[in-house]
Amino acid sequence: MNRDFYMRLALNAAWRNQLLTYPNPAVGACLLDTSGAILAVAAHEKAGEAHAEVLALRDGFLARTADQNAQNALLACKTAAEIHDFLRAHHNGIFDGATLFVTLEPCNAQGKTPACAPLISALGVRNVVIGSGDRTPQMAGGAAFLEQNGARVTRGVLLRECDRLIEPFYIWRERPFLLFKRAQRLNGTINGGVISNQAAQKEVHQLRSLCDLLLIGGNTVRTDRPTLDARFADHGRASDVLIYSAHSDFDRTIPLFAVPNRRVMISSDLGVIGDRRFVLIEGGDTLLNALWERIDLLLVY
Amino acid sequence: MNRDFYMRLALNAAWRNQLLTYPNPAVGACLLDTSGAILAVAAHEKAGEAHAEVLALRDGFLARTADQNAQNALLACKTAAEIHDFLRAHHNGIFDGATLFVTLEPCNAQGKTPACAPLISALGVRNVVIGSGDRTPQMAGGAAFLEQNGARVTRGVLLRECDRLIEPFYIWRERPFLLFKRAQRLNGTINGGVISNQAAQKEVHQLRSLCDLLLIGGNTVRTDRPTLDARFADHGRASDVLIYSAHSDFDRTIPLFAVPNRRVMISSDLGVIGDRRFVLIEGGDTLLNALWERIDLLLVY
Repeated sequence: MNRDFYMRLALNAAWRNQLLTYPNPAVGACLLDTSGAILAVAAHEKAGEAHAEVLALRDGFLARTADQNAQNALLACKTAAEIHDFLRAHHNGIFDGATLFVTLEPCNAQGKTPACAPLISALGVRNVVIGSGDRTPQMAGGAAFLEQNGARVTRGVLLRECDRLIEPFYIWRERPFLLFKRAQRLNGTINGGVISNQAAQKEVHQLRSLCDLLLIGGNTVRTDRPTLDARFADHGRASDVLIYSAHSDFDRTIPLFAVPNRRVMISSDLGVIGDRRFVLIEGGDTLLNALWERIDLLLVY
Repeated sequence: MNRDFYMRLALNAAWRNQLLTYPNPAVGACLLDTSGAILAVAAHEKAGEAHAEVLALRDGFLARTADQNAQNALLACKTAAEIHDFLRAHHNGIFDGATLFVTLEPCNAQGKTPACAPLISALGVRNVVIGSGDRTPQMAGGAAFLEQNGARVTRGVLLRECDRLIEPFYIWRERPFLLFKRAQRLNGTINGGVISNQAAQKEVHQLRSLCDLLLIGGNTVRTDRPTLDARFADHGRASDVLIYSAHSDFDRTIPLFAVPNRRVMISSDLGVIGDRRFVLIEGGDTLLNALWERIDLLLVY
């Protein structure tokens, strides 16, 4: 199998967590042992937690270590720093000659977690295959570090696909990223009865709990009287709401206005988005048409 | 990585050729060497040609043989029987200890190609992991044959997914399989301007060249005046056409009626499908609603 094959496994894993890693980029990794067997396919899950490379190395350790005590000790590590430290102390050469595929150049500096490139290097991974280069000045330089420390580095594998994966990250670093979510039937209709299933609802609630602002149309508020909370998400924080409407005559007794710890604004001026960087839009055809030119990504269930 | 992971690779490969193998089932395979490295992922491509297992073994041989002459000799094999014979004669033990995942139990009898189970056994594949069991009396027994000859056989991995993959095959063995193809915009509209791209057109033309009957609505013939040939397919045979209409007042000068070597029928009685086993329906909302209860699979671009 060629390099594209393994990079695509990493890409597919990363796309499953696309946007859910906000404000971090979605990143995927695939780890092969020295004989070419897949040890792990992993993706970054949540900002502040371990990066994709580290999760792949962790899963690779678990796959190749028979010692139950060592496995339990690694599984007990709560933070990325703990996982880094454990792997550095206990890798015991099992990654010698390994090959790591990663959709984004491993970071070379401490952020919310320790830097990945030094860990990969310390663990003896022999080959590192990278999709996109890191374009952030703070984190770049991982590939050069790895090469200087003896790894063979290949850059630009499935570059276009890896660049597409990371596109939302570069947008929300610069300006508000607008995600339009829509649940519809195959024939395009959205009214009358439930459309999406509970898995989709849970995903949307996770996005609601991650985003900086939830934008919704005035007609939806008047007709559907939604709550727009995030009760199905792991951490049910409800984001602020902007009702996109020129009129402010809404029934303030509906549940939407009663969710604690959040602000509800009413405006037809998108300027109120301000410096919020991740805007989730839930709306119907009117809102879709009104905002069409500004939407960065359309998520259709 | 667990067994599900490799079976899913086989499944995904098979779905890319779903229906294109008619009248054979769609089947996928994934081959690992003795250390667990993936040697090949392959899928059956066309009835009469080599089965998925044989293509995976062929690709595995190519991946593990440095001898350019042997590679060229294998690539020069035109028929499945030639590939079988070549691998039996030249495998040289490279499959010793290998593991083969296959979505459907390997066949145990000569059909249009030689039987797969004896080949797998002769090549020294140690482990065979099977999704669905073969329910056809002619071909079944492959798993038992493999076990009797020393292979370790695991059955029923991702059984539900493998059964779903093969469902069209069991339908068209019993009665006509009705595939409804529809190209639409996200909002459900189908009229005005081109919708699908050339890759989609090529795929549809391949289906047209494979199916036994092309069913189309009378309104589409009157409005769009389509040719409904298969010129973008590898083998551009045009199948017979049934215009589903109670009226026969069509303009006989349109290209539809001028394609050589095919019959055009006009009827509102689905009984004229007769013993044709693969019916491709291309239509709009009227036809979709009229036939909804009878449709086996909906293909939406």
